[in-house]
Amino acid sequence: MSRARLGDIASAVAGELIGDPGREVGRIASFDSADDDSITFVAKARLNAQLATSAAACVIVAPVLRDAAQARGATIVCPDPYLAYARLTQWWAARQRRAASQGVHASAVIEPGAVIDPSASIGALAFVGRGARVDARAVIGAQAHVGEDALVGSDTVLKPHAVLSDACRIGERGLVHGGAVIGADGFGFAPTREGWQKIEQLGAVVIGDDVEIGANTCIDRGALGDTLLGNGVKLDNLIQIGHNVRIGDHTIMAGCSGIAGSTVIGRHCLFGGSSQVMGHLVIVDHVEVGAASVISHSLHRPGRYGGYFPFDDIPTWSKNAATLRNLHALRERVRALENKT
Amino acid sequence: MSRARLGDIASAVAGELIGDPGREVGRIASFDSADDDSITFVAKARLNAQLATSAAACVIVAPVLRDAAQARGATIVCPDPYLAYARLTQWWAARQRRAASQGVHASAVIEPGAVIDPSASIGALAFVGRGARVDARAVIGAQAHVGEDALVGSDTVLKPHAVLSDACRIGERGLVHGGAVIGADGFGFAPTREGWQKIEQLGAVVIGDDVEIGANTCIDRGALGDTLLGNGVKLDNLIQIGHNVRIGDHTIMAGCSGIAGSTVIGRHCLFGGSSQVMGHLVIVDHVEVGAASVISHSLHRPGRYGGYFPFDDIPTWSKNAATLRNLHALRERVRALENKT
Amino acid sequence: MSRARLGDIASAVAGELIGDPGREVGRIASFDSADDDSITFVAKARLNAQLATSAAACVIVAPVLRDAAQARGATIVCPDPYLAYARLTQWWAARQRRAASQGVHASAVIEPGAVIDPSASIGALAFVGRGARVDARAVIGAQAHVGEDALVGSDTVLKPHAVLSDACRIGERGLVHGGAVIGADGFGFAPTREGWQKIEQLGAVVIGDDVEIGANTCIDRGALGDTLLGNGVKLDNLIQIGHNVRIGDHTIMAGCSGIAGSTVIGRHCLFGGSSQVMGHLVIVDHVEVGAASVISHSLHRPGRYGGYFPFDDIPTWSKNAATLRNLHALRERVRALENKT
Repeated sequence: MSRARLGDIASAVAGELIGDPGREVGRIASFDSADDDSITFVAKARLNAQLATSAAACVIVAPVLRDAAQARGATIVCPDPYLAYARLTQWWAARQRRAASQGVHASAVIEPGAVIDPSASIGALAFVGRGARVDARAVIGAQAHVGEDALVGSDTVLKPHAVLSDACRIGERGLVHGGAVIGADGFGFAPTREGWQKIEQLGAVVIGDDVEIGANTCIDRGALGDTLLGNGVKLDNLIQIGHNVRIGDHTIMAGCSGIAGSTVIGRHCLFGGSSQVMGHLVIVDHVEVGAASVISHSLHRPGRYGGYFPFDDIPTWSKNAATLRNLHALRERVRALENKT
Repeated sequence: MSRARLGDIASAVAGELIGDPGREVGRIASFDSADDDSITFVAKARLNAQLATSAAACVIVAPVLRDAAQARGATIVCPDPYLAYARLTQWWAARQRRAASQGVHASAVIEPGAVIDPSASIGALAFVGRGARVDARAVIGAQAHVGEDALVGSDTVLKPHAVLSDACRIGERGLVHGGAVIGADGFGFAPTREGWQKIEQLGAVVIGDDVEIGANTCIDRGALGDTLLGNGVKLDNLIQIGHNVRIGDHTIMAGCSGIAGSTVIGRHCLFGGSSQVMGHLVIVDHVEVGAASVISHSLHRPGRYGGYFPFDDIPTWSKNAATLRNLHALRERVRALENKT
Repeated sequence: MSRARLGDIASAVAGELIGDPGREVGRIASFDSADDDSITFVAKARLNAQLATSAAACVIVAPVLRDAAQARGATIVCPDPYLAYARLTQWWAARQRRAASQGVHASAVIEPGAVIDPSASIGALAFVGRGARVDARAVIGAQAHVGEDALVGSDTVLKPHAVLSDACRIGERGLVHGGAVIGADGFGFAPTREGWQKIEQLGAVVIGDDVEIGANTCIDRGALGDTLLGNGVKLDNLIQIGHNVRIGDHTIMAGCSGIAGSTVIGRHCLFGGSSQVMGHLVIVDHVEVGAASVISHSLHRPGRYGGYFPFDDIPTWSKNAATLRNLHALRERVRALENKT
């Protein structure tokens, strides 16, 4: 990693530097691990008291902490230090990242009829199917897969081993991590006496701009219409999105979550890790679902919802769980007592 | 997509057409989104009242709805409209699907001693190990993997990035989606003072005919004997099947489920999404397990089983969860009250 | 599979053979399925009564069962029969396993500046990025991926389709199964009015020696520092490890578990399948977490913890779940009764 000057950092995050612009730092660090070669940030006011003791070369703070920070040493003042931290990581990564080499690696397989922008990069052993389109500056990682008639928008990156299946589309500035499978068949079968008859999944997956898809996450193609992800959606790893689900703009979902088929989710929703949502539900904008929850009904009002069994030491849990299995009877006993008294 | 004549559709689904066989439709649509260029279906009688207002070019209905449907416009009458819909999607997909090109792509790697039927298709950058066998009309997708001594039955499709590991076998007419890993090691270790000693997994995975395996689903090889999936089994995405599990014919499992090692599951079972089954259990035929359930004991009778914490708004859930942690004590308090009165 | 002599097996497991060293067996079998061509083992004393009736050619037993086993037939006596079984599987697998061919397959892509030990094996269609290092006797499976500046320690095996991303490192004698993605971006974004701003993940993943990573498991790279797995850690399939998690030596985790970001887990912990641990927690050494549990607070003492909703038949569960949603009110009713009496 190369070193960076505080003056350049302040420009990159659009902050006001109080201190020597020529001073250099070697890394970005969390507040607790920052040493005198680090730049760090204070996202929460409650760190105020700890500020004075930080050994960091420079601290990014909100205006409210300007005086306290300045008394300590070099400071960058920004309206939103956490956002400044995000921008700093972006600037830092861009400085040290090797640009993907334009053009098609000799070992990649491009089928006839694929259209690849000359500024795009197709990695080693990657595959681009016939009729697919890869737009300007897009990067298809080594061993990644772009199916027939699929579309990869400008500046979108498919990391190594990402899979965008036939006829699926992702917009601009997207990022798909390794092992993600976009466009496997939705899960649909008709029962018969002889077994399950497959319902062919004739739709695709259509993804907006600025979307990130985590490693080994699956987004199934629609049965008839398409599965849809809006702009700015962020999905973590190992998430399952069933067929014909629709997810609104800027909704974010932590790892191991699952959304069953045909559920429609609004904009600006947050889903905690390992949350499960049943099929054919409607969830409005600005809903927050807690981790490890099972959402079994539609949510028509913004708010925070959730629930999981609180853990305990195993003997205590066992006793409570056994009682829970007779909870209805316990309620009847309470009712009987109430009637008596 | 090419257009289709109602007469051809009626033949494909073995239904009785009431209307002009020459009329064309451009797509299959769900009931609610069908327009006058769509064919749709009514799987449930409760849609009866809505039928009259549908703009669909043609509706597939059960005999009980014949009169109501006919009054509306073109109709196809079938004993089981949902099955007819499944067959229609199959017919529709077959019409528009480009056939996989027979033979081995120049970029694929076929190891010595692999036996590939001349009618099979091996995609770009695919791998087939020594001693493997790929039978008639099987399709190994781009970048997919067939391990040493593995077997792919006739008409089975491994989608791009599917992995069938060494010595594992799948029967005829199967479908394995991208990222599925069939035949990773089961999870077995013996504890020692110096750490965990690996138990090498000497078995394989053996899968019957007409089986579908979802994207990024894992089926582990057996420790000594094999892990077994019967005929007609359907597994959704991101499912974990532990070593030496046996799953009976026509059992179906929704996404994110997990079956721990050595559990034996019967035929015609249904598992909801994210259901978890512990190891070394026995589940008989015709058991239905609800979504997000944890099955901790064997199930010896057919029926519907399950359970999860019902979600609520977070403050309500928090209060109930706190009380739950003392539920056993609450029961004792009720008992004390009963003894007093 | 080739056959093995009891004398050789006894040497391999460092046990005392009572019986004919020249007798051959064809397979290792579980106790219940052992026939007269099998060697098996008794790991638990409770099988004592069944021992006499076993048809196995040879049984591995603890010293306490020496007499009972000897009366039955050929016996190998070992202090820890389960460990002997593990060693026997290792010896058995080594005998029949085809050694990976040294060197680089002609179809693999090795970027300039990668350093590959001459005794290592790079499989067909594998990728090794610039600056990566693959040490002695390491095996990179077909279609596997070693990113730029990544490190694969001696004797470590990446199975086909495993992904070790840029700058990530794994130690010696490791095993990474297919579809595992080591080093995708951690999940971090700063909220803005226009949507989520990405926090670039500048750390890597650093993994110790003797670590096994299951199929389709994801281990995210750190945001600033690295995500760390100690020596001897064993992770099953479909596990999610968030950014900056640290896992202590010899901790073992069953399938479908998830550890959210920045949580620190001690040494010698056990996690049951589908257990979920929230972020920013601390879990000390020697903690055991039950299957399907949600750990929402730090655990400062060794012990067994867990909890999940006990399943039931669906009607019973529904009644209990409905009551649970008013549990807090029920407690108040009990309190009211107590105040009255």
